[in-house]
Amino acid sequence: MSQITEENLHEEKTLKELLIRMNRIEGQVRGIKGMIERHVYCDDILNQIASVQSALDGAAKLILEKHFKSCVKQRLLQGDEEVIDEVLKTMFRLKR
Amino acid sequence: MSQITEENLHEEKTLKELLIRMNRIEGQVRGIKGMIERHVYCDDILNQIASVQSALDGAAKLILEKHFKSCVKQRLLQGDEEVIDEVLKTMFRLKR
Amino acid sequence: MSQITEENLHEEKTLKELLIRMNRIEGQVRGIKGMIERHVYCDDILNQIASVQSALDGAAKLILEKHFKSCVKQRLLQGDEEVIDEVLKTMFRLKR
Amino acid sequence: MSQITEENLHEEKTLKELLIRMNRIEGQVRGIKGMIERHVYCDDILNQIASVQSALDGAAKLILEKHFKSCVKQRLLQGDEEVIDEVLKTMFRLKR
Repeated sequence: MSQITEENLHEEKTLKELLIRMNRIEGQVRGIKGMIERHVYCDDILNQIASVQSALDGAAKLILEKHFKSCVKQRLLQGDEEVIDEVLKTMFRLKR
Repeated sequence: MSQITEENLHEEKTLKELLIRMNRIEGQVRGIKGMIERHVYCDDILNQIASVQSALDGAAKLILEKHFKSCVKQRLLQGDEEVIDEVLKTMFRLKR
Repeated sequence: MSQITEENLHEEKTLKELLIRMNRIEGQVRGIKGMIERHVYCDDILNQIASVQSALDGAAKLILEKHFKSCVKQRLLQGDEEVIDEVLKTMFRLKR
Repeated sequence: MSQITEENLHEEKTLKELLIRMNRIEGQVRGIKGMIERHVYCDDILNQIASVQSALDGAAKLILEKHFKSCVKQRLLQGDEEVIDEVLKTMFRLKR
């Protein structure tokens, strides 16, 4: 029981962390819109897009880790190997 | 003169197209936040992140094309080769 | 017993497939060296490098799948969660 | 005249550097074949593949730089804008 609670707390913490990151990404995207409207130099806009991509990579990594340590693990322990094909397909859709 | 006007019109059109794309990306990011809050299955969230990455790639490609056909070309015509190092560095920061 | 044999056969087949792919990649790399020596147009060389990268991606995907369905699964079933951190770290080193 | 000679020397140096890199990559690919044959742990093979991908990225970057500073620049100076579409298409085929 106490283990489940600990896991829930950890889960809760990860979700909060993810929301903070996605809020930051949303702000960056809004910032890029402003840059486009203000005719900022293209190279600066491209570097800002590269930053958003890195931030998305980081968020994806966090979710993948959480996914592996909960759903993927549990489904594998239940003998469900299809989860491997599912997660591999998703990982190869994600950049890097 | 008429050529410049045509170029401006083209530029204007590209900027509008870019803003539409960035608005869509902003909406997708907001959608992902909602998915996280509603505890949607991780694999679905990851696929949504992959979609945002593809959309960002598309926007970056459009900006790069515009950048090449205006600033990069003009600076090269003026004998400024540093623009090549600048654009290469940026391109290698962008995924893909 | 018969299951183990079947698994071994499958493993054997995957290894053969991987060697065929790596041989092809080795040939492509040698081909690129020849292109460089013959001063072939850069854009053609770059496209050949892109082909090698795709071929390497395909090989990596095949190895990852094999890795997940054998080692990763077994270590998870034995309660060893470190394998998740290991495989995630590797996957984020691989392009895409 | 002396400038052309200098450029040729630089070109020669870049080609030599590229051949050295491609030789190293060919050796790495052969090494991976050996690892597969000796049934080395998958994670080690995957990390070796990631190294080859990085080395290919480096070679591609070198060729792109050379390409931009010679062919792309010259064709742009001659008013040929198609070279931009060609190089953009190639860059988006290359990983990263």
